[in-house]
Amino acid sequence: MTEPTGGTSERSERAGGTDGLRFDTISFLSDYGRTDEFVGVVHSVIRTLAPGVVVIDVTHDVPAHDVRAGGLTLARSAQYLAPGVVLAVVDPGVGTDRRAIAVEVGGGESILVGPDNGLLASAVAMVGGATRAVELTNPEHRLEAPGPTFDGRDVFAPAAAALCRGVPLDDLGPDIDALTLRPGMLPLPQIEDDGIGAEVLWIDRFGNVQLNLGPDDLAPLGVEGDRVSIRIDGAERTARRVRAYADLVPGELGLAVDSYGLLALVLDQRSAAEELGVAPSAAVTVSSLGDDGAPQGTSRPVTLRSKP
Amino acid sequence: MTEPTGGTSERSERAGGTDGLRFDTISFLSDYGRTDEFVGVVHSVIRTLAPGVVVIDVTHDVPAHDVRAGGLTLARSAQYLAPGVVLAVVDPGVGTDRRAIAVEVGGGESILVGPDNGLLASAVAMVGGATRAVELTNPEHRLEAPGPTFDGRDVFAPAAAALCRGVPLDDLGPDIDALTLRPGMLPLPQIEDDGIGAEVLWIDRFGNVQLNLGPDDLAPLGVEGDRVSIRIDGAERTARRVRAYADLVPGELGLAVDSYGLLALVLDQRSAAEELGVAPSAAVTVSSLGDDGAPQGTSRPVTLRSKP
Amino acid sequence: MTEPTGGTSERSERAGGTDGLRFDTISFLSDYGRTDEFVGVVHSVIRTLAPGVVVIDVTHDVPAHDVRAGGLTLARSAQYLAPGVVLAVVDPGVGTDRRAIAVEVGGGESILVGPDNGLLASAVAMVGGATRAVELTNPEHRLEAPGPTFDGRDVFAPAAAALCRGVPLDDLGPDIDALTLRPGMLPLPQIEDDGIGAEVLWIDRFGNVQLNLGPDDLAPLGVEGDRVSIRIDGAERTARRVRAYADLVPGELGLAVDSYGLLALVLDQRSAAEELGVAPSAAVTVSSLGDDGAPQGTSRPVTLRSKP
Repeated sequence: MTEPTGGTSERSERAGGTDGLRFDTISFLSDYGRTDEFVGVVHSVIRTLAPGVVVIDVTHDVPAHDVRAGGLTLARSAQYLAPGVVLAVVDPGVGTDRRAIAVEVGGGESILVGPDNGLLASAVAMVGGATRAVELTNPEHRLEAPGPTFDGRDVFAPAAAALCRGVPLDDLGPDIDALTLRPGMLPLPQIEDDGIGAEVLWIDRFGNVQLNLGPDDLAPLGVEGDRVSIRIDGAERTARRVRAYADLVPGELGLAVDSYGLLALVLDQRSAAEELGVAPSAAVTVSSLGDDGAPQGTSRPVTLRSKP
Repeated sequence: MTEPTGGTSERSERAGGTDGLRFDTISFLSDYGRTDEFVGVVHSVIRTLAPGVVVIDVTHDVPAHDVRAGGLTLARSAQYLAPGVVLAVVDPGVGTDRRAIAVEVGGGESILVGPDNGLLASAVAMVGGATRAVELTNPEHRLEAPGPTFDGRDVFAPAAAALCRGVPLDDLGPDIDALTLRPGMLPLPQIEDDGIGAEVLWIDRFGNVQLNLGPDDLAPLGVEGDRVSIRIDGAERTARRVRAYADLVPGELGLAVDSYGLLALVLDQRSAAEELGVAPSAAVTVSSLGDDGAPQGTSRPVTLRSKP
Repeated sequence: MTEPTGGTSERSERAGGTDGLRFDTISFLSDYGRTDEFVGVVHSVIRTLAPGVVVIDVTHDVPAHDVRAGGLTLARSAQYLAPGVVLAVVDPGVGTDRRAIAVEVGGGESILVGPDNGLLASAVAMVGGATRAVELTNPEHRLEAPGPTFDGRDVFAPAAAALCRGVPLDDLGPDIDALTLRPGMLPLPQIEDDGIGAEVLWIDRFGNVQLNLGPDDLAPLGVEGDRVSIRIDGAERTARRVRAYADLVPGELGLAVDSYGLLALVLDQRSAAEELGVAPSAAVTVSSLGDDGAPQGTSRPVTLRSKP
């Protein structure tokens, strides 16, 4: 500021400046919760190492150690995240020899940073697959740590900050073959004798129960009609296909297309999950109602393939 | 950055730049909770559509679907929010024909964006009333969505971002008459035979019980003295008027002016709400103590008017 | 922006600009929770008074009124926080005559702002001690408030914003002697007849139980071996010293160096705190296992001193 002729390069090094950054946004997801200082400390490390970067908290309330839930959350969010770095940490294997990785997608539009335990896999697939990956081994881009249990602070945040500052990917560590990355696990619906065998992917804050079924999956799998049969743990319910929660009368179970394009079991202004007693990963059988209102089995032979 | 003569307009288009923005702050309130990615996705949409804008989270833990609680929270906060856009979403009617609106206040100093269900009304009134309003119908300022249940992401955030970028209000949709906006509901205290019939507006994290009564309401309504009688659900307690929580002895109930200028029932370092067993909207009768320490009825005829 | 010759000083006054700020980061910790609008209102006040400043939330879920827990959280975070202002509010004495203070550390590298109740003390000590302190009495740097119970909004946030804008410390109020600041309380381990008398400092989200013992404290205090005896409330357990959570078999209790360099009782992917039934401040006796696997007393005379 005392040098009025100082140009771009000088200004880019000021705290708070965004000039000269390769990426100016880090999207951050974890199972750290907000009760402890973990999330705040990661923000602080990034603020210190890459001052002009904005950190967006996707969520930090992934259930502790739940890699599947974290991976699904990241996959749902992926298409909405700003280009830049995605920092994701759900890491029960911290301190072991599981790899710490950075995965480039879109030919460099974004880079995902986190543990190699399947957490990143579904999101990477959602945005077109990995174009490159490295293992984070370079000690220059780590913090020295008294103990090995907080890699979010000591390994992943410094790597994310370095990438934002323009440090080349291969400065962080050796290239690894994307084919060796741990895959995610996205369950596919199954044809069963008595209907479609679906699974609960997610229960949101409002108690909506997202299934691994899209609205266009039902008819090809032999399930039709405005009302369908829902069987959970032996108990049978009827659900009506609706557009909005408020289309339901009090207590009526609905089957709606949710905001991510999948089918969800819903109630109006109440928790369907509580009413149905279901948790993530629960099995849900969806079938047609017969003319007599009784559920019908289906045995139409259909090959289930992963959706694009 | 390669064009040293590039002026304001060029710089304003950089990610992270605030030049050229009409508003650089969005204050964001919802009932989305922080467990799911809803809040993070809304931040991401804004970051993508209006990169230089700072989003301030007022709170996202309004009880699910509780328009009254959300409206009161917004009204309490209104006078402290930075000028700019207020994005508020508590929206049980999402997907129905309830209107999505933007309401200008202060002749354009701020614009509130949200559903037309009463949520915005008290805050709008707090800052002087609407100077203009439009319905958000222009599809150019919406995201295409697979399902109609996440208007925070698909309708309200894009509108808020557009307003920050300087898109004129009437580009978002047709003008609507502010008189047709759904009103909020702020309960007024009532004179009753046995005292002032008040209502619990809010219970905060510390268990303080805010009433719909200001400190200057008591005497005109016939309630006087350093100690007053509090009757809730038939049970009677005495509360002492104090300035600070710590003025109370352990277990003693206090009546203090809270940080918003209303009277609140409080305990020192404990939850008065838990002790009294009250929830928002509960009825609380406040009356004088007689010479014998017994509560006195009041029948002084007073006209109750809305406070400014 | 209409004055192309406008230089640094003009730009520094724009909303969003960071030029001209003395500090551009406020690290904010409190017991306000996130359910109410308290945290959002404090952010808004800072955004209004010092627009270019970034506020990093360390955590707001310190247990209500728990000055000890807040002070320990701040001390753990201190070395990772970006230089700037630290705003810390856990303040059961709000509204009383407890002092509101600003404490300079590192000769001005950072300034801590909060109540003088011991909350700041451990963090101040962690970063080398106070180089100066003032009491926040200047009404020009306060908000007028209807009630005296929200000093975070009315006293501390305006002071923090003023310091970021470059207001000199002594404009905020009179100098006070750092020796008169309320000390924090960091419990030291004790030598006891039957081992080391330690104390639970912190239980994190994952249920890890941090003790007030470093890994180098055990041997000098007479506790050795790969396995040690842990006694809590009369019940005895064996804990194995491990590096990572995943080194443990299911249900096995571990003693690991945590991410702050202290010893913690841990389980793999489960809560050790729940398993052991302990809370912060609980007493934990650590001793050697004898040749027969039974715990051994220790009476080696060792002077315990505060660690640097």
